[in-house]
Amino acid sequence: MTSKISPIRIGLLGFGNVGGALVDLLAEQRTDVAALTGIDLNITRVAVRDVDKSRPHDLGGATLTSDALEVATADDVDVVVELVGGIEPAADWVAAALGAGKSVVTGNKALLAARGRELLDLASANDVELLFEASVAGGIPLMRALQQSLRGEPIRRVMGIVNGTTNFMLSKMSQDGADYADVLAEAQRLGFAEADPTADVEGHDAQAKAAIIASVAMGAAVTPESVPVEGISGVTASDIANAHRLGYAIKLLAVVELFGDRSPYEVAARVHPTMVPLTHPLATVGGSFNAVFIEGGAVGELMLYGRGAGGRPTASAVLGDIIAAAGSLTSGSVRRTPPMTEATIRASDETMSAFYLDLSVDDRPGVLAEVAGVFGANGVSIRSMEQAGLGAEATLAFITHEATEADMRTTLEELGSLASVLRLGARYHVIGD
Amino acid sequence: MTSKISPIRIGLLGFGNVGGALVDLLAEQRTDVAALTGIDLNITRVAVRDVDKSRPHDLGGATLTSDALEVATADDVDVVVELVGGIEPAADWVAAALGAGKSVVTGNKALLAARGRELLDLASANDVELLFEASVAGGIPLMRALQQSLRGEPIRRVMGIVNGTTNFMLSKMSQDGADYADVLAEAQRLGFAEADPTADVEGHDAQAKAAIIASVAMGAAVTPESVPVEGISGVTASDIANAHRLGYAIKLLAVVELFGDRSPYEVAARVHPTMVPLTHPLATVGGSFNAVFIEGGAVGELMLYGRGAGGRPTASAVLGDIIAAAGSLTSGSVRRTPPMTEATIRASDETMSAFYLDLSVDDRPGVLAEVAGVFGANGVSIRSMEQAGLGAEATLAFITHEATEADMRTTLEELGSLASVLRLGARYHVIGD
Repeated sequence: MTSKISPIRIGLLGFGNVGGALVDLLAEQRTDVAALTGIDLNITRVAVRDVDKSRPHDLGGATLTSDALEVATADDVDVVVELVGGIEPAADWVAAALGAGKSVVTGNKALLAARGRELLDLASANDVELLFEASVAGGIPLMRALQQSLRGEPIRRVMGIVNGTTNFMLSKMSQDGADYADVLAEAQRLGFAEADPTADVEGHDAQAKAAIIASVAMGAAVTPESVPVEGISGVTASDIANAHRLGYAIKLLAVVELFGDRSPYEVAARVHPTMVPLTHPLATVGGSFNAVFIEGGAVGELMLYGRGAGGRPTASAVLGDIIAAAGSLTSGSVRRTPPMTEATIRASDETMSAFYLDLSVDDRPGVLAEVAGVFGANGVSIRSMEQAGLGAEATLAFITHEATEADMRTTLEELGSLASVLRLGARYHVIGD
Repeated sequence: MTSKISPIRIGLLGFGNVGGALVDLLAEQRTDVAALTGIDLNITRVAVRDVDKSRPHDLGGATLTSDALEVATADDVDVVVELVGGIEPAADWVAAALGAGKSVVTGNKALLAARGRELLDLASANDVELLFEASVAGGIPLMRALQQSLRGEPIRRVMGIVNGTTNFMLSKMSQDGADYADVLAEAQRLGFAEADPTADVEGHDAQAKAAIIASVAMGAAVTPESVPVEGISGVTASDIANAHRLGYAIKLLAVVELFGDRSPYEVAARVHPTMVPLTHPLATVGGSFNAVFIEGGAVGELMLYGRGAGGRPTASAVLGDIIAAAGSLTSGSVRRTPPMTEATIRASDETMSAFYLDLSVDDRPGVLAEVAGVFGANGVSIRSMEQAGLGAEATLAFITHEATEADMRTTLEELGSLASVLRLGARYHVIGD
């Protein structure tokens, strides 16, 4: 029996919701972790903005300070946990920690998306690890799956519900037939949405996560700027009802696709509300849950489902990373991967998707032929069409086969200029079963 | 830019369905894996039963032999991949490989369940790794999630659909209202079930997997013998219809529960057909898919879903493990964990569950009171009751609150001896939302 216990000292930057949950979880689990792994985790230093603020967490003997840089580089710290959020000054502190030979665990998606490549290289150069499981989809072990379990897998596509706020809102709209504004107000009241909900509802949070997923899946850097984004603020209760009638749920998806047979692949990542067949596993993901659906050439279909946010689920992911980093330190080696190149991005005009769209039209003979002619002239093939209403209320709802974004845009422009088309209605990306 | 490439030589034991898929997948992915990890994977030796059999796979320059022990211990092999199956002689070959300082990757659940503890200790003693992601739930990265991502998580319960054959059959029975015998014949025709389906339909396959899940989640050895098992051969089309009417699907689940606040926990593992609420994520897992639902004190609810069997999905998991083992070898260290103790098993009589049961009864005043009295006298509290049919056809269907297995058994015995109870019908474990 090995009874050797290796002490590992943790420096914590930031002591908010997740930091507090982590301190509590560590206090609960310290004995068990030591029994299971031989590693004794001990928080020695904590950097906070205001050292005088009272906090309902037992910090043991840890030193509380407002000097984050000191914690990041202290001699009595082996692993630095960054839970400050935002790009600056977190990036400086993480860089300082890596430079000082500390492994770093972070849950900071903005930092990763903006500076991940440079910080990962810095970690490698200093023979330490930068782990970030908590940065995407909270408690779901997605990063480790992509980086390790699926490292040999020919991944074709990753589609994720990676923002709990918008999934809560869309699920609620679907369940209650409620309007966007009403569910937003409810989400704010329940604390699921911020007072300024822009980052969530306009898809920017999902955009950063899409960039991280794409980078990790590709092993090549994808920046958030190369991820086109469309949020959910244009989604209406009647869109959701129409989609449901046709057998679809509307979900905000981060979609990452890899093209080609072999590295270097082309990659395309995007975020948009998507019509997902009700029979698809992603359609059943309700409330504020997250889920990531992976399609691989060998593994087939894989889905990981769980809590994408919240103090304790996120702290669980952070703790898993701390144990992994500590394991590498005690075993005397870290996992190094070659530096990332910059990914080759497929132009968004050239990415393909099936689409839903609806139009209000003059209800007279010949109009459908005219409309269908515009699709055909642009190489967009129609999979199904349904007319709802009659006379001035007539609406045509189309679902197309796969077409390029560019062809679909041209089709919409030309449809909009037809005299018989009174109004262009909703347009959604559609995925298959 | 690091351009150093480390060659890793693989010795393959067994060259059936999964072995062939692995050889093909490696040929496809070798360049990509080298680009992403700096590791060049090369199969140098393959042990097969019959070297003269023709095989539609390109083995490159690998040596084909019928001497598995030679491959397991050869100087030009760094990682041994065991895909032979069964306990003996696979155990000897794996032990020989570990003893010769090779890391071993296996997908062999029978071997792991029976000899895992001893082989893991042998790996540690020889400073090499024994990885077995493919042994449970095929392409789903469950083992890595339990061993690494959730190593600090206070796991309360793991419930898995871990046998594709029985899930295919139960899904089919549910969809088509078909009988057990008919779907078994169909599953055999489609190659989803063996000619002798006992290992699948009587739950023995799931039993071995439950033991592995329990051992890994606990960090303490649980043997298959301590996992009570009930298969699906008693499940009827009318049971499934009754369950559906009450809002449940019937799924064969491997259930692992951890009791207590702190290590050493008590553990209970069991396999049985279970009524799962239709709103539960496990209820939507159809066809031959596998899924594992994890309930943790911090992470909350987590589900991993994917292909639990099949050549390519399993080969994907094996390849992920090969890359991990190779990474440890090239970085010059392996992850060691303390030796496993033997788990403390909670007596199955004392494990709690809600139950469904139905009874045919005399349809006369006072019978319900008499029946309900038996539940009450044994401390089993009734959550809901429904009468179907009248007169001689009257059936009472009960769902109970949680009760011990022992109390439920006594209740059933006493109900069976009541003159007014004409027949004891179905009995199922029930889980909540």
